Amino acid sequence: MAGKVYLVGAGPGDPDLLTVRAMRLLQSAEVIVHDRLVSPEIMNLVPPTARRISVGKSAGFHTVPQDGINALLVKLAVEGHTVIRLKGGDPLIFGRGSEEAGELAAAGISYTYVPGITAAQGAASSTGVPLTHRGLATGVRYVTGHRARDAVLDLDWDSLADPDTTLVVYMGAANMAEIAARLIAAGLRVDLPVLAVAHATTPRETRMLSNLTQIGADLARTPMEAPVLFVIGRVAGLYETAALPLPRELRGPHLRVVGHG
Amino acid sequence: MAGKVYLVGAGPGDPDLLTVRAMRLLQSAEVIVHDRLVSPEIMNLVPPTARRISVGKSAGFHTVPQDGINALLVKLAVEGHTVIRLKGGDPLIFGRGSEEAGELAAAGISYTYVPGITAAQGAASSTGVPLTHRGLATGVRYVTGHRARDAVLDLDWDSLADPDTTLVVYMGAANMAEIAARLIAAGLRVDLPVLAVAHATTPRETRMLSNLTQIGADLARTPMEAPVLFVIGRVAGLYETAALPLPRELRGPHLRVVGHG
Ligand SMILES: C[S@@+](CC[C@H](N)C(=O)[O-])C[C@H]1O[C@@H](n2cnc3c(N)ncnc32)[C@H](O)[C@@H]1O
Ligand SMILES: C[S@@+](CC[C@H](N)C(=O)[O-])C[C@H]1O[C@@H](n2cnc3c(N)ncnc32)[C@H](O)[C@@H]1O
Repeated sequence: MAGKVYLVGAGPGDPDLLTVRAMRLLQSAEVIVHDRLVSPEIMNLVPPTARRISVGKSAGFHTVPQDGINALLVKLAVEGHTVIRLKGGDPLIFGRGSEEAGELAAAGISYTYVPGITAAQGAASSTGVPLTHRGLATGVRYVTGHRARDAVLDLDWDSLADPDTTLVVYMGAANMAEIAARLIAAGLRVDLPVLAVAHATTPRETRMLSNLTQIGADLARTPMEAPVLFVIGRVAGLYETAALPLPRELRGPHLRVVGHG
Repeated sequence: MAGKVYLVGAGPGDPDLLTVRAMRLLQSAEVIVHDRLVSPEIMNLVPPTARRISVGKSAGFHTVPQDGINALLVKLAVEGHTVIRLKGGDPLIFGRGSEEAGELAAAGISYTYVPGITAAQGAASSTGVPLTHRGLATGVRYVTGHRARDAVLDLDWDSLADPDTTLVVYMGAANMAEIAARLIAAGLRVDLPVLAVAHATTPRETRMLSNLTQIGADLARTPMEAPVLFVIGRVAGLYETAALPLPRELRGPHLRVVGHG
């Protein structure tokens, strides 16, 4: 009998931010196929008896291509395993969860999604910078700042340059100087606040408060270790007055809080 | 000594989608100040010894105004209580969590945020419709379709009419016909799919697949019980081929799945 695949969001890193369902699935896991983005703190919850298969991307190392991941999930399920496919954040937000599901469906394998706290929510709750706030942001938008090799950044800059919307850029560290310049060209304020947050909700969390004009130079001067996301908009300005310290239990030896904040 | 306030997201309704931290806080709660949006399934987890204060909005009933909620939280904390302020979804996405935090900070009360799965993620994982998907949506945007009494809907329609972005409308049921018409006027396809999801992730979940032209009439013919959200964009078209049934444990006596899907 074929097994089943759970496409599970691991959240931003803090094990306490797993959903109850994800925690239960992890703790009774038999086979886990996980991305590199899943924090070591969360991987420590997986029972030692479970088989762990890393398909994660790591700069400079070969990674399992998406086709290979799809084929692996199908193979494991066909062999009868219950597979936990564990992804950083939420599987349906820049997580390719629905692509993997499409391949599973085509192979007749049943699957379920378990949502996870997405990185933007992790960064918001940890730093104290909200994603929406009356008078500052009537909505929030998540985009990816990644570009395929040699491709141009294909974003609709006019649409993005909306001062009433919080813009959260995932996978944007490499292109942030260009993104910021284009947002200014499309009409956003040169001093619009930008809060960069790396490793949100983990003991390695760092933050940098900057603005659209400075963020490129600030990142060049103080590189931040991936994963990093950028919260762009008036809400980020609240970091000056409403920043939260990292919870005591998360203050690791590596914590650096840098920037103007 | 003053107490402390936890601004906690309850997620979309399914208790299994609480974060581990939220679950722990709820189960040891002394005082809970909660919105009406928090599901009865979740309120059942609160110990009988806890004091429960509902400040929820309910159509036709008087509700505690935001100032009153702020004052109540400050008062309870000043009295020394540890207060769980429980909100539907995520406290920092259309949750006014940061407004309440601002009042707490002004009164010298300490607070912490606990993020929650937002309604859009609950609806996505439950229905199988992703928020981003290669080739269909490069990003996702959350807006509110609510308007203050007599006010016009103050949204930037040109910016919203982006076919490459999934648009999720919270609090939009009353104005969906107008929202859809304006999105069409701003250039979106007349047959762009719209998936409406009510009570996502609870035994009362219902769904309706429609499109921008039909959604107003469909809602008039088949009203959906609040809370409802709308997923607008090419991803919603995946509902035709990739819709997930409600998990068996969530199929209640009241489940209706309606629409073209
Ligand atoms: C491939 S995307 C996956 C997003 C994930 N599915 C989610 O919902 O958060 C990877 C990007 O997520 C962001 N990210 C994930 N975890 C993060 C964290 N703990 N802190 C900051 N950014 C994070 C970074 O922008 C990173 O480049
Ligand atoms: C005041 S907003 C609060 C949003 C919440 N903070 C969140 O992150 O989901 C209320 C709106 O959220 C949406 N909503 C909340 N829970 C929902 C659910 N279980 N199913 C569908 N929509 C929901 C509806 O659009 C509702 O009008």
